[in-house]
Amino acid sequence: MSYYQQERHVGPMPPPALTDKLRLYHVDMNPYGHRVLLILEAKKAKYEVYKLDPLRLPEWFRSKNPRLKIPVLEIPTDQGDKYLYESVVICDYLDEKYGRVQLHSRDPYVKAQDRLLIERFNELIKGSLECFDTNFAFGSDQIIQTLDIFEKELASRGTNYFGGSRPGMLDYMIWPWVERLYLLRCVNERKFDEKRHLFPNFADWGDQMQLDDVVKKHSNSPQDYFDYYKNARTHTMGYYL
Amino acid sequence: MSYYQQERHVGPMPPPALTDKLRLYHVDMNPYGHRVLLILEAKKAKYEVYKLDPLRLPEWFRSKNPRLKIPVLEIPTDQGDKYLYESVVICDYLDEKYGRVQLHSRDPYVKAQDRLLIERFNELIKGSLECFDTNFAFGSDQIIQTLDIFEKELASRGTNYFGGSRPGMLDYMIWPWVERLYLLRCVNERKFDEKRHLFPNFADWGDQMQLDDVVKKHSNSPQDYFDYYKNARTHTMGYYL
Repeated sequence: MSYYQQERHVGPMPPPALTDKLRLYHVDMNPYGHRVLLILEAKKAKYEVYKLDPLRLPEWFRSKNPRLKIPVLEIPTDQGDKYLYESVVICDYLDEKYGRVQLHSRDPYVKAQDRLLIERFNELIKGSLECFDTNFAFGSDQIIQTLDIFEKELASRGTNYFGGSRPGMLDYMIWPWVERLYLLRCVNERKFDEKRHLFPNFADWGDQMQLDDVVKKHSNSPQDYFDYYKNARTHTMGYYL
Repeated sequence: MSYYQQERHVGPMPPPALTDKLRLYHVDMNPYGHRVLLILEAKKAKYEVYKLDPLRLPEWFRSKNPRLKIPVLEIPTDQGDKYLYESVVICDYLDEKYGRVQLHSRDPYVKAQDRLLIERFNELIKGSLECFDTNFAFGSDQIIQTLDIFEKELASRGTNYFGGSRPGMLDYMIWPWVERLYLLRCVNERKFDEKRHLFPNFADWGDQMQLDDVVKKHSNSPQDYFDYYKNARTHTMGYYL
């Protein structure tokens, strides 16, 4: 086992079977995995993180996950460890499984609306971070269109968070991309701050989210993200951005 | 209002506000709307169907639903009528709202697995019915691949239905496409029946689903589907197949 422990992130041996904890297979800085980290934290689940290099996925991982979806949540059950994919499905699972604080609304209509907004967000952000590769300008139509939808939604809800008086599922599902958006402040602070008045509710929401304990636990600084996304190697990961 | 009633399907006037019933905006023969009809029926919800011609959508519908998603479920609330989109989100909403018989598993892991299978099915069937336009051969790789996944899943569950001893959410979510697949029997009965042994569990499942009261309520015959899909006009709808 010591060999395995030394080579933890790239070694050919799979990690041991789980006992009580959950295990998240995660690519560092990946926003979809970031979603799951936030929900694991919000639900106070017991978990460990197994970091994967998407450019060097171990064989045992490939054989267990032939579609190579990341993140993956490994769950200990009486019938052995089981796996779940797709960040939204994983997070909804955690929300149902760990009753403590429910993140989705208890009103089925509001929950359905939030799921539609999460799906809409998923569609809009596809590839939106790749633009950081060649163009760090805070002006991509895709980003503006997305912020506009969520600005209006927050204004119409009239609450501090999408989830009401505290962050809920929708807040956490969109947060990883918004946290990364602040890297644009490293590019041009004045230009970034000038845009605040276009999205006043959303800007306030962002300020408050940054103070949330769950968010703080898994946050990176704008400079960290800037350094990460300007790194050419990052962009060879394409799909995993 | 009589003008409206005469012109119900194409008229320029929107239907009246709802009182107690739900209203489904549906395109005849559309499999996504078929999903919602099955769940409305399974949950014994009170509903009416408003049929739309996708090639002649009324202006009021376009303005209320700028993304032109169909089906749409209209829901009466204290704040006026509200709308939900996306068949899977609508069906999950109905399952939560109408507690009577729960269609999703109460086990969060099984529910999550079923959601992944529904998403996988959604990906695989995209465009699969368009193949009926030029090629009514029961051999498209996409269809075989899909049937194979569900054959294996059913075998591993060892139950009559994906939902266990009765149809559940996953059964109803995939049924509309499977019901349409039987039209291939009109093309070549012998060839269709010969394929049965490749998918024995799935074939038995199909036989049983056809006897389900919910399914029977909204079924069409293989000949109806054959006539529909060989009609060139159908294919101008593209997206709505």
